[in-house]
Amino acid sequence: MDNDGDRTNDAHLVETKVASEAVFDGKLLHVRRDTVRLPDGSLATREYIVHGGAVLIVPVLPDGRLVVERQFRYPLDRVFIEFPAGKLDPGEAELVTAQRELREETGYEAGTWTFLGTIHTLISYTNEKIDLYLAEGLTHVGARLDDGEFLEVVTMRVDEMLAALDRGELTDAKTVTALLLYARRLALQR
Amino acid sequence: MDNDGDRTNDAHLVETKVASEAVFDGKLLHVRRDTVRLPDGSLATREYIVHGGAVLIVPVLPDGRLVVERQFRYPLDRVFIEFPAGKLDPGEAELVTAQRELREETGYEAGTWTFLGTIHTLISYTNEKIDLYLAEGLTHVGARLDDGEFLEVVTMRVDEMLAALDRGELTDAKTVTALLLYARRLALQR
Repeated sequence: MDNDGDRTNDAHLVETKVASEAVFDGKLLHVRRDTVRLPDGSLATREYIVHGGAVLIVPVLPDGRLVVERQFRYPLDRVFIEFPAGKLDPGEAELVTAQRELREETGYEAGTWTFLGTIHTLISYTNEKIDLYLAEGLTHVGARLDDGEFLEVVTMRVDEMLAALDRGELTDAKTVTALLLYARRLALQR
Repeated sequence: MDNDGDRTNDAHLVETKVASEAVFDGKLLHVRRDTVRLPDGSLATREYIVHGGAVLIVPVLPDGRLVVERQFRYPLDRVFIEFPAGKLDPGEAELVTAQRELREETGYEAGTWTFLGTIHTLISYTNEKIDLYLAEGLTHVGARLDDGEFLEVVTMRVDEMLAALDRGELTDAKTVTALLLYARRLALQR
């Protein structure tokens, strides 16, 4: 299955930029509205968020337990179980962000880092991507949360997380994806 | 692991609304900026998208192949492989949306519908949720795309999709999540 989006072969799908404007420039969100030419030559509007990218970490303790966070997410008005994650600082390499966020949020440093894959979180209206990393060989060095950041660090076994997923209690898409990718990796290694 | 976000037990995590305003009201995106009180009593700003919810369908042909779409996604300027998906019309039940979107986008009707779970796509800045459905017993009745909608319907085996995932060619988060949930379901049934 060819997925490289070749512009010649995919001319029946490709949209081309005609005009672009910033319509909201907030602290967190940067929204653009573009006019695009559709494959049939007609014009359409595309509204989307411009995002600098993020990373997620699956931190595995020596006993196999995973380090996760309980964090209140305002848009959904509830607490979620999540793997540690965070945005890239401008110019920062993904792995450096992952190491920084793991240390800041959970207080752990990892001896071994393994790239698990990339996901695009919401392709209809943001260009955000998240690189997923596995962090093993953890040592506790002490957390240092950003000002205004409140979260609780807990640990869960893989089977506990899968059971929470089956009960509908684990719904954060990035966390579900990373958990299932990690569980698949464990199963393939057996 | 308690994840119900009990406001009393989670008072050290919960943020409370102080003020709320619409800051961008577009065709697709509706952005709000709220002032919130943090657990330590200080104030902070939250910018987020208000979304009406969506569904995704994992359509399985009688021979086990999955029906997927190749679609150009403007925010990332490339073609993605995706499961069929779409937004709820106002007041529309999730299953009705799933049946409508499957028929409109791929031309299939399904004899059996099974709820696979709910994901929250991007909990830091949208309230969007996607309900995932498995559609089996497919009959082809003919597609009818919306005006301005361009996509290509193709079929892939589960192992082909997992191989594409391993090669980094399948990165749409909702599709990766649904594929891994479906593959897990198949493995548990064996």
